[in-house]
Amino acid sequence: MDKNYTAELEQIVNPENVITSFEERLTYSYDSTRLEYMPDVVVKVKTAEQISRIMKLANEYTIPVTPRGAATGLSGGCLAVEGGISLVMVAMNKIIDINPIDLLATVEAGVITENVSKAVEHLKLFYPPDPGSMKSSTIGGNIAENAGGLRGLKYGVTKDYINSIEVVLPTGEIVNMGTNTVKAVTGYNLVDLMCGSEGTLGIITKATLGLLPVPADRASILAFFKNMTDAAKTVRDIVAEGVITATLEIVDKVTINAIEDFLKIGLDRTVGAMLLIEVDGQKGAVEIEAGIVMKVCRSNSALSVRQAKSAQERDELWSARRAALSSLSRIRPSTILEDATVPRSRIVELVEAVNEIAKKYGMLIGTFGHAGDGNLHPTILTDLRIPEQSKKTERVIEEIFKVTIALGGTLSGEHGIGITKAQYLKLEISKPVYDLMKKIKNSFDPNNILNPGKMKCTWDA
Amino acid sequence: MDKNYTAELEQIVNPENVITSFEERLTYSYDSTRLEYMPDVVVKVKTAEQISRIMKLANEYTIPVTPRGAATGLSGGCLAVEGGISLVMVAMNKIIDINPIDLLATVEAGVITENVSKAVEHLKLFYPPDPGSMKSSTIGGNIAENAGGLRGLKYGVTKDYINSIEVVLPTGEIVNMGTNTVKAVTGYNLVDLMCGSEGTLGIITKATLGLLPVPADRASILAFFKNMTDAAKTVRDIVAEGVITATLEIVDKVTINAIEDFLKIGLDRTVGAMLLIEVDGQKGAVEIEAGIVMKVCRSNSALSVRQAKSAQERDELWSARRAALSSLSRIRPSTILEDATVPRSRIVELVEAVNEIAKKYGMLIGTFGHAGDGNLHPTILTDLRIPEQSKKTERVIEEIFKVTIALGGTLSGEHGIGITKAQYLKLEISKPVYDLMKKIKNSFDPNNILNPGKMKCTWDA
Repeated sequence: MDKNYTAELEQIVNPENVITSFEERLTYSYDSTRLEYMPDVVVKVKTAEQISRIMKLANEYTIPVTPRGAATGLSGGCLAVEGGISLVMVAMNKIIDINPIDLLATVEAGVITENVSKAVEHLKLFYPPDPGSMKSSTIGGNIAENAGGLRGLKYGVTKDYINSIEVVLPTGEIVNMGTNTVKAVTGYNLVDLMCGSEGTLGIITKATLGLLPVPADRASILAFFKNMTDAAKTVRDIVAEGVITATLEIVDKVTINAIEDFLKIGLDRTVGAMLLIEVDGQKGAVEIEAGIVMKVCRSNSALSVRQAKSAQERDELWSARRAALSSLSRIRPSTILEDATVPRSRIVELVEAVNEIAKKYGMLIGTFGHAGDGNLHPTILTDLRIPEQSKKTERVIEEIFKVTIALGGTLSGEHGIGITKAQYLKLEISKPVYDLMKKIKNSFDPNNILNPGKMKCTWDA
Repeated sequence: MDKNYTAELEQIVNPENVITSFEERLTYSYDSTRLEYMPDVVVKVKTAEQISRIMKLANEYTIPVTPRGAATGLSGGCLAVEGGISLVMVAMNKIIDINPIDLLATVEAGVITENVSKAVEHLKLFYPPDPGSMKSSTIGGNIAENAGGLRGLKYGVTKDYINSIEVVLPTGEIVNMGTNTVKAVTGYNLVDLMCGSEGTLGIITKATLGLLPVPADRASILAFFKNMTDAAKTVRDIVAEGVITATLEIVDKVTINAIEDFLKIGLDRTVGAMLLIEVDGQKGAVEIEAGIVMKVCRSNSALSVRQAKSAQERDELWSARRAALSSLSRIRPSTILEDATVPRSRIVELVEAVNEIAKKYGMLIGTFGHAGDGNLHPTILTDLRIPEQSKKTERVIEEIFKVTIALGGTLSGEHGIGITKAQYLKLEISKPVYDLMKKIKNSFDPNNILNPGKMKCTWDA
């Protein structure tokens, strides 16, 4: 640590926002991956101007800077893997403007995702992206990772709701990208390039987000199946019937049992799979679509199908689904949540392949996820403290990725590459495209100081 | 023209696909802007491999290459402004694959936009982007310009339906970008960067497009108003009522009269504005939403409101709207179609400002467009052969752009920058962002041979 450099940081943000003690830095050394990288200094910022000055200083001293929101990420995006400054954005949490005519909300990057919807619910509006972490994740982190969620099939993902952003470039300039119009084609589409760039191209400080009217009605349907194959076929058939559901969640036997162990809500342990489906829209439309969904479930040999009769019953069903990950994580010391995503037509094959891999390695894998998007979360339950288990886990992950790509899928549907999947990047991205990515990175960040060490991939062959 | 270079082109695509005669090249020298730039040679291609070899050759000789689809663009995107090769893509018109489960269609870049929907209508699916040129424009051109259309508010624009693309990079590599999954966050989002890059970053040869189920029902509503202000207020109020209409088109008095002169369908010439609104969805939902729309029209002093009673009547209403531009273009020798786009809440102000500008310069301007998107097409009717009129037109355009930007809008909602708006780019894009665009261009195209001379902007101050 360069003393001058710390002193200069203290001039920018005041001494109480510059943290150098080991104990305090430790709390900023990990995220939801449980990996640990220690930053040299933690700086809490409040304004884009402060960040601009910090970036200029960081370029001068060639110090890595890693922006950090709520640290709920699952690929290591906010970890300071090369040390330097951990730039903590959570105090930038103002909701600046709400415009119900343009269906827009302008917020600072540190605003918690769910708070956007809460701030507009009295206007009967909502912000559609709903990552699992929405109660604690920040909008800035959501944009950096292009966060997904349960409602992807009908409502899309974060990038579909970002109209314009304020960004501090790695070189320190504060710029605006995008416009707050429904359509805009002026210049290159840099907003969508920033979205999902994992904090490597710029620091998002403010965003104008798109909102939608809250649907007048919704219905939740719960269906149980003998096995995952029947459930996955049902998913395909619902879409083929022309129904675009708000959510279409699948849960396998391992996960059903884990949820029942945890919540004791009377789930049938003998079934092989569960679908939890929500349709929303105008009143009449919801009943029509719910009817089609239930018919398709039955024609795919559902063991039982029922529609939630009340808001309370509906909320209970969704609490069960939302408890999937926490229920699974109670079973073994280590929980590795994967993010394999395939075209919807291939989910039967993905589910069967994951089961085969689990059997081959004698590994317990619970699978749940957003089946309507083809976005599954095979969750490996293991103990990484045991070297043999750790090695086996790595092989299981690699096999899951390989089958995912072979099925026309992607390494990551919504969690990002970061450090956890960087080594697999070359399975999906060709060398010329990767070289373009590096040149783009260099165009934005010539000294490679902003969130270095992420999305790095090696080209062995 | 270098003889060797032509001979090498003939080796790549066969002599009959290399056009050098003046007369034939002339037909490839203009697009829908009516501007003219003569290419040195026209090359008709069939495969990505041919394009790859041409790009390698072009780099070797430093020859500009400008991809060209159906030339329906309104900003000069396909014009060979620096000469060189005009690369004609229209023979690459195969529909390669249709996947009704994944809601995807894979097509070559030269496929005509409307043909995508035609190819899937038997499956009750459609491709939502519907630019005015859809009967003749190509998918490749649509992606390059990020084409919009009438259904933007509810269904978005071209970029919302591009899952993956095959691209020949300016340096000749054939690469794939994106994946055919609903969610994908692996690596930088290059697909959305390519979309709207106006053919300057790569040549799109193939695309996998998203489809949607055809709505079960739809209703069209026609409403007349005393003036544009009442109509614009109605637009705002419909959205504020939570109804996201499929289309929400506005037409002013000048345009209504032009349509009536042309089609003689009995439109009332005394009214000041017309709204043409379509809602779609499940059967019950459509009636509910149509009812809300009609109520809002009436509460904003509509002179008359009616719902089309039959498919035939509906088609007649839409023919009238689609005839707006051709009707206006009959009035004066020159028709300049602008593309001013503002947040929806500001359309009243934009409409009033355009009227003021028309009055100030004594210029006839007909305004129509996609009011739900805030995307208006003020259409200047003039005679550019008269120098005084031409100068005045330029001043009118600049004033319209300035007021659009001042209202938080954008230079272009859906037509692009190209050469027609390049000089105004600095009104909207700041210098650091423009510098980033140039660096990105250089990353893709180090010799600046792909579609050079587009989106160029000068920084006077």
